[in-house]
Amino acid sequence: MSKPLRLGLAGLGTVGVGVIRIVQNHADLLAARAGRPVEIAAVSARSRSRDRGVDLSGYAWVDDPVVLATRDDIDVFVELMGGEDGPAKAATEAAIAAGKHVVTANKAMLAVYGQALAEAAEAANVALRFEAAVAGGIPVIKALTEGLAGNRIRRVMGVMNGTCNYILTRMENEHVAYDQVFADAQALGYLEADPNLDVGGIDAGHKLALLASIAFGTRVNFDGVQLEGIQRISITDIEQAADMGFRIKLLGVARLTGRGLEQRMQPCLVPADSPLGQLQAATNMVVIEGDSVGQVVLRGAGAGEGPTASAVMGDVMDIARGFRLSTFGQKAASLVDVQPAQAATPAAFYLRLTLKDAPGVLHKITGALADAGVSIDRMRQYSHRDTAAPVLMVTHKTSRAELDHAIEGIVATGVTLEHPVAIRIEEV
Amino acid sequence: MSKPLRLGLAGLGTVGVGVIRIVQNHADLLAARAGRPVEIAAVSARSRSRDRGVDLSGYAWVDDPVVLATRDDIDVFVELMGGEDGPAKAATEAAIAAGKHVVTANKAMLAVYGQALAEAAEAANVALRFEAAVAGGIPVIKALTEGLAGNRIRRVMGVMNGTCNYILTRMENEHVAYDQVFADAQALGYLEADPNLDVGGIDAGHKLALLASIAFGTRVNFDGVQLEGIQRISITDIEQAADMGFRIKLLGVARLTGRGLEQRMQPCLVPADSPLGQLQAATNMVVIEGDSVGQVVLRGAGAGEGPTASAVMGDVMDIARGFRLSTFGQKAASLVDVQPAQAATPAAFYLRLTLKDAPGVLHKITGALADAGVSIDRMRQYSHRDTAAPVLMVTHKTSRAELDHAIEGIVATGVTLEHPVAIRIEEV
Repeated sequence: MSKPLRLGLAGLGTVGVGVIRIVQNHADLLAARAGRPVEIAAVSARSRSRDRGVDLSGYAWVDDPVVLATRDDIDVFVELMGGEDGPAKAATEAAIAAGKHVVTANKAMLAVYGQALAEAAEAANVALRFEAAVAGGIPVIKALTEGLAGNRIRRVMGVMNGTCNYILTRMENEHVAYDQVFADAQALGYLEADPNLDVGGIDAGHKLALLASIAFGTRVNFDGVQLEGIQRISITDIEQAADMGFRIKLLGVARLTGRGLEQRMQPCLVPADSPLGQLQAATNMVVIEGDSVGQVVLRGAGAGEGPTASAVMGDVMDIARGFRLSTFGQKAASLVDVQPAQAATPAAFYLRLTLKDAPGVLHKITGALADAGVSIDRMRQYSHRDTAAPVLMVTHKTSRAELDHAIEGIVATGVTLEHPVAIRIEEV
Repeated sequence: MSKPLRLGLAGLGTVGVGVIRIVQNHADLLAARAGRPVEIAAVSARSRSRDRGVDLSGYAWVDDPVVLATRDDIDVFVELMGGEDGPAKAATEAAIAAGKHVVTANKAMLAVYGQALAEAAEAANVALRFEAAVAGGIPVIKALTEGLAGNRIRRVMGVMNGTCNYILTRMENEHVAYDQVFADAQALGYLEADPNLDVGGIDAGHKLALLASIAFGTRVNFDGVQLEGIQRISITDIEQAADMGFRIKLLGVARLTGRGLEQRMQPCLVPADSPLGQLQAATNMVVIEGDSVGQVVLRGAGAGEGPTASAVMGDVMDIARGFRLSTFGQKAASLVDVQPAQAATPAAFYLRLTLKDAPGVLHKITGALADAGVSIDRMRQYSHRDTAAPVLMVTHKTSRAELDHAIEGIVATGVTLEHPVAIRIEEV
């Protein structure tokens, strides 16, 4: 059997411990599959004394991850510290410079510095892989970069923040308002220290930017992601959408169009009976559409010790088996710099209006819509006991600009009691 | 850019034409991703004169696939002829002996001769890959062998014959009997020349045997697959199952237990609201359960020109990129020869009885169940107009042997008008 592949592991939080457990518990399995043993040589973390429930006695301890990353006795630097720059980036750069392969779960670092890091890795002839950075245990980077490498990708989309999906599905299933479910999620430790990373769509936006790059051969452009969080989703919208056969998801969608690279991470309505619509709780889902393969749907746990460690080990095993693939599926220098699309692909929209209950009101609204060139596919007015008349519409396909124009016109009529709510309906 | 990877393509049916289209239409894309051009050098098929709608003029034509497989100007032999032996096997063996890589979509050949072919390929230091043989466009072999390589697999299961799922979902949605939907499927060309390959579960059984091998590191053992087709599924069972919240699927399940390798391809009840239960029409789905990753679900087209060609090209691109992986994910010589499990994992069962409408009948039935040690979770008797009383039961978990013993006892009471129908309920 060939010589062992030796890992240096920086970051001993949940995922790091998960990786150690796999390496310790499955030594025989990994060796049989890789054709060589996979071992941990050295580890690094902030606290040496903390009990993590795993035996670290066989591994060298290094306080400084940069020192760990360049040790002679490691072949692969496994970066599980997180943070878009700081020690994670410094250690990753040092590892590459020292000729070590790198496996990371760090979506923020790659979404911001991915291009430079990928170029450095290719120049040094080492692998830089990041399966664990996107959709946890789902092997989506591998599916997209390798399994579907014969396809021109038409669209990639997904629900990639489990916490947001947990909040939205609990709101729907239990008819509870956003604020209360948010508070529960925070109490349960489901939210990042800065909750805006989750509910503001930033974390999922990082993942989308990475997926878009490998799907379309474009340079990672996180700044080009149109971001909208779930904070303003009301229980009313969830219930009304459900009533019309839809569910609301924080959905990332990326597409390369004649107008540029479209990257949106925003609440969308999707059909309740579609795979995306049926996705409950913290589970993740990625949908890939290729010109030959059609639609492929991947579903699994998006976070947690086991799933994320599984993804890290997938990358480690590739390296152990001698696979060398460019970080984004093709040479970093060949990735194209595409401008963000100025306008998203037209879509139908859900529109919720709260109107004064008076003669002629609906006539004014429909006039404003007609003036903006937005036509109505479906409309419902609900019976009501107070003076505010709730009206729901689904438009025919329209551009967001036309829709915004229509909303301005609607507001200008003076018959609305609340600002209109508009949510895109994504065809899935 | 490195030198081109040259393909020799044997079999110009739907899938072969799909591969040619991808290579012709996506030359730039493939070259950018692989770091080298991918070209077709030579082709072979039964009829040279048939118009296939693609331009073959740039390729050498070879009548004999064995001759094609050993040509000096090819690096990869792409076998798309099918058939478990005959020319497909002869050409594959010749290609390997001549030091060519092989990509095949031939599930039957691999299910029967996979071990010998994998050993030959490893001895010759060439790749033998078969992503297209299982679940069409879904990159499931890659997910299982590579992406989830850090997991001990607990169970792999799937709906892998689109025609059977088409028949079963049409029966349910349109309340039409098996015979009629079967006739429609045949008229539409959805069925193999020998329909038993589809509805008898043989085609799906081949796929299950391949998945089991890579999931558990065992030698392919198609003869060890317990096969049961969908021919005896009645519209009554589909409707009664639906009424209790289940759907009937031709489900393949593989598990390595203390009792041996369990491989079953049989109609099962699954919860209607599970991903497997929601699978409609000809779509395929594979569910992989790993000890770290938990449950990963993959869904996509299981057949057709584009999806299957996409899978073939995934393998071709791996080879173009220099990936070399053993056929079944680890050295063929290290695959274990495990005996088929003597008994399947215990499960709950759906039991449909047609009973005489007379006093004491239900008392006799419940007595027979009690004698066999089978306890009842749910029971329903439907109101009826004739003298045959339909009774449905869901048992608690029991072994198939105990259940069969109970059924014998039920029949022996003399109160049944039809032979009892028993269908396993798979926990998913």
